[in-house]
Amino acid sequence: MRSNMDETLRSESDDVDVDFGDDGLVPAVAQDVDSGEVLMVAYVSPEALDRTRETGRAHYYSRSREELWEKGKTSGHTQAIEEIRVDCDADTLLYLVDQAGGACHTGHESCFYRTIDGENVGEKVFDPDAVYND
Amino acid sequence: MRSNMDETLRSESDDVDVDFGDDGLVPAVAQDVDSGEVLMVAYVSPEALDRTRETGRAHYYSRSREELWEKGKTSGHTQAIEEIRVDCDADTLLYLVDQAGGACHTGHESCFYRTIDGENVGEKVFDPDAVYND
Repeated sequence: MRSNMDETLRSESDDVDVDFGDDGLVPAVAQDVDSGEVLMVAYVSPEALDRTRETGRAHYYSRSREELWEKGKTSGHTQAIEEIRVDCDADTLLYLVDQAGGACHTGHESCFYRTIDGENVGEKVFDPDAVYND
Repeated sequence: MRSNMDETLRSESDDVDVDFGDDGLVPAVAQDVDSGEVLMVAYVSPEALDRTRETGRAHYYSRSREELWEKGKTSGHTQAIEEIRVDCDADTLLYLVDQAGGACHTGHESCFYRTIDGENVGEKVFDPDAVYND
């Protein structure tokens, strides 16, 4: 009870007021808190941010499926939140995470596994066929 | 260093075809190549990407001013490009940069200097009044 009240008071007083803009979404960068690797960028709605803070696991909003999703819900490759940061304009988030498995559906640790020249510089950490197909 | 001719040939054959979507822009994450710190997120047009590759300095597109801009053109806090990466969906870029000065107009090294709880966790590396006012 006491902690809930503290949480509420803190939320009301100090939280950064995120600017979700016209479409109600902000981009969020997920970064591995240990390696520093940038893992992915996805979009976050107010509800996704609330769920992320409540559960301590990264949630996003899928623009194509038009729904809230929890990273790793299907694959098991969840992102445990270590810290959430907000940029100077309060319209972009940074999730510092402990990534289970790999972040990318291609099996790579990071979605940024290619240079723009087409060179593969990423580490493959799982077999996507084994993870996504039953 | 590769010659210009090599660059041209390589560009035509292997480059990742970036998906600029309906609005003609993709988000780009700038990350310090030495410290690994995520510095900022801004938007990139095809022209901004071309200029970035041509000059080796990070260029973006300002949605508010509706114009191409070179990071650090006014402040001197340029971003020398070490590598450009593209994510799995080819709709987000990662600029690995050598950041001169600090990336944030507030004087912080990174624009992500606050936690969502409002705690300042960033390093201030310059005095914005001294840089932006004459």
